[in-house]
Amino acid sequence: MSNPTAAILVIGDEILSGRTRDSNLHFLAQELTRIGIALREARIVGDVHAEIVEAVRALSGKYTHVFTSGGIGPTHDDITADAVAEAMGAAIGHRADAMALLQAHYDRAGLPFNEARQRMARIPEGATLIDNPVSTAPGFTIGNVHVMAGVPKIFEAMVASVLPKLTGGPPLLSQSLRVNRGEGEIAAEFGALAAEFPDLSMGSYPFIQNGAHGTNLVIRGTDPGRLDAAMVRLTRLFG
Amino acid sequence: MSNPTAAILVIGDEILSGRTRDSNLHFLAQELTRIGIALREARIVGDVHAEIVEAVRALSGKYTHVFTSGGIGPTHDDITADAVAEAMGAAIGHRADAMALLQAHYDRAGLPFNEARQRMARIPEGATLIDNPVSTAPGFTIGNVHVMAGVPKIFEAMVASVLPKLTGGPPLLSQSLRVNRGEGEIAAEFGALAAEFPDLSMGSYPFIQNGAHGTNLVIRGTDPGRLDAAMVRLTRLFG
Repeated sequence: MSNPTAAILVIGDEILSGRTRDSNLHFLAQELTRIGIALREARIVGDVHAEIVEAVRALSGKYTHVFTSGGIGPTHDDITADAVAEAMGAAIGHRADAMALLQAHYDRAGLPFNEARQRMARIPEGATLIDNPVSTAPGFTIGNVHVMAGVPKIFEAMVASVLPKLTGGPPLLSQSLRVNRGEGEIAAEFGALAAEFPDLSMGSYPFIQNGAHGTNLVIRGTDPGRLDAAMVRLTRLFG
Repeated sequence: MSNPTAAILVIGDEILSGRTRDSNLHFLAQELTRIGIALREARIVGDVHAEIVEAVRALSGKYTHVFTSGGIGPTHDDITADAVAEAMGAAIGHRADAMALLQAHYDRAGLPFNEARQRMARIPEGATLIDNPVSTAPGFTIGNVHVMAGVPKIFEAMVASVLPKLTGGPPLLSQSLRVNRGEGEIAAEFGALAAEFPDLSMGSYPFIQNGAHGTNLVIRGTDPGRLDAAMVRLTRLFG
């Protein structure tokens, strides 16, 4: 497939410790599939400067887009903006446009625009801001890296601002067939069918239900006609 | 912390396409935390040989343990065993011990031990088998890489066989305090407290509930006395 590609980098100790379960990855995966950007890799690293720098460099060199989630708040463990700036070779400081947005927000709320809150105006030079309709503190895009908040409501709102600006490919379609047979029973014929349709991707996902083995067969691709043709064959084989 | 470290590599197109939501990562994160192995990184890659090889090499060189999930079944898209063998520089073939286990299993079930099912006996030379009490087809450990199935029930059973054999550190403990204030309000004092306890890790996780901002403050470490001391201070500040 020649669709644009993407990776997501989730930043935060709380996922790796098992304390919270990430939902941003799954949300972004679904949104990208819809607009025809192929999510190829995901990484989760902790709140460690060198790890974030290394991951951003590796992923931004390899994929059309990188989306990051987490670490752009006001506390000492929010180090994403500085790490992304370093990875992309950009200077970073309190940017006037972000300072003005936040100042106005806290003035309206009658809250002090203190030093911690000012940290959220640290934006790399040359980045464009990503709108945050939930709590104002902006994300940003620098090069092919889109830096967004970790709180799911804010992450999702930022994704909604960013995605319409990106060029997707044809939507990544999928069709599936659920069969009440184990993978080992259908593997040979399914593999032969996959070899006949090299332009499609075919995967089999086993499950166990009430002690019985079953398999979900999934066909993915961008050409609806080819998908339909493959599904006809699949249904004839196992339907 | 001098605890042993780990990474998890989840293999499979179905997570990246948004079709299914991974649960193995979260499960393993909790289990490792309990036995004092620090999960430092997670990666998800698709069913692509070169990507799996590269990720296994990078992670096995960097962490005490690597756990993989997915891609060890009988179908054409199950390519994990071959990729791990290549990454670890080991030959791979149908191993007699795995063949015997599977032959006995399918004989008992009255099912043919066909070519596809025999694929599941492809195990790298020098690896030790990981018991699969759910559906027999084994995982394996080679070097510091533990290769397990993606189906959650089987993954969890394999984790239960593997973890007791590993040397953990002191359990990674955490305590948390929920405060009904935004991060920007508590950031300065919380950051100063974190600086006073460099042996502990302190993170703040904002949330929005009924339109109001709140923050979960989490302290992690291995020394229960230090955790208690920090929590007393934290509760005095924000409780």
